[in-house]
Amino acid sequence: MKKLFLEDLKVGQVFKSGTTSLTAEAIKTFARKFDPQPFHMDEAAAETSFFKGLVASGWHTSSTTMRLMVESIPISGGLIGAGVDELRWHLPVHPNDTLRVESEVLSIRASQSRPIQGFVRFKHTTFNQKDQIVQSSTSVVIVPTQKPVKPAEKAH
Amino acid sequence: MKKLFLEDLKVGQVFKSGTTSLTAEAIKTFARKFDPQPFHMDEAAAETSFFKGLVASGWHTSSTTMRLMVESIPISGGLIGAGVDELRWHLPVHPNDTLRVESEVLSIRASQSRPIQGFVRFKHTTFNQKDQIVQSSTSVVIVPTQKPVKPAEKAH
Repeated sequence: MKKLFLEDLKVGQVFKSGTTSLTAEAIKTFARKFDPQPFHMDEAAAETSFFKGLVASGWHTSSTTMRLMVESIPISGGLIGAGVDELRWHLPVHPNDTLRVESEVLSIRASQSRPIQGFVRFKHTTFNQKDQIVQSSTSVVIVPTQKPVKPAEKAH
Repeated sequence: MKKLFLEDLKVGQVFKSGTTSLTAEAIKTFARKFDPQPFHMDEAAAETSFFKGLVASGWHTSSTTMRLMVESIPISGGLIGAGVDELRWHLPVHPNDTLRVESEVLSIRASQSRPIQGFVRFKHTTFNQKDQIVQSSTSVVIVPTQKPVKPAEKAH
């Protein structure tokens, strides 16, 4: 994939990822390390929980979303996030669900202090195999400029 | 730990976690699965990157923060998040950094539609071994009530 600079991005542009599936074993392995709660680790215990069955940790969904983003948004120098907002888990992710991510450019701005970079706000939406939204978020990504932005251009 | 219900929580209450360390190997293992970028996977490549050295994926920090939260906020039925806002990675996490989390209750409200639960907003702050803030966020957690809230009480 051609690596992208700030000048290559446009508001409304959408990056679509490939897909990946979460097995029951992967859900449990993640949970044992990072979110050790019964509804993420044990089918029987999960049946009597809030979720009525085994579900992935929200952070497993977020981390899987990151993987799909890294593979589908080819920013020069890497995908470096400054922060995330409005992270919502709309529906549980169950064993063998297949996820994909769409990332839309919401806004682009040059850095005021560092002419070699800018900030791009994305809306990320994670879908399951039924095209239901399981997660959404917005993020600000640091993107290098191909040519340093001149002070005069920054004034506009 | 005694499990807590909505009635047990108070605005301003702070939950302090234990500590955990991230080894270089753990940083690379997480990154290979969820954030396969050179600055999270390879010391030599990381030297010439934005970060000038190996750093943990922000999602590794978030997931580790979740682990510390699960161990330190004993909500009845489990720690079930409805969403996260203002997730910021203030400083990189380096190999062998030791993290701990403080979670402060910002606000508490009963559910309007389900008297058996309420929503608690927390501010979570993740510190390294130098007491520097590496991550902060706010989250809304679904917390069960010990006794269902009566409609009359909800009017207040």
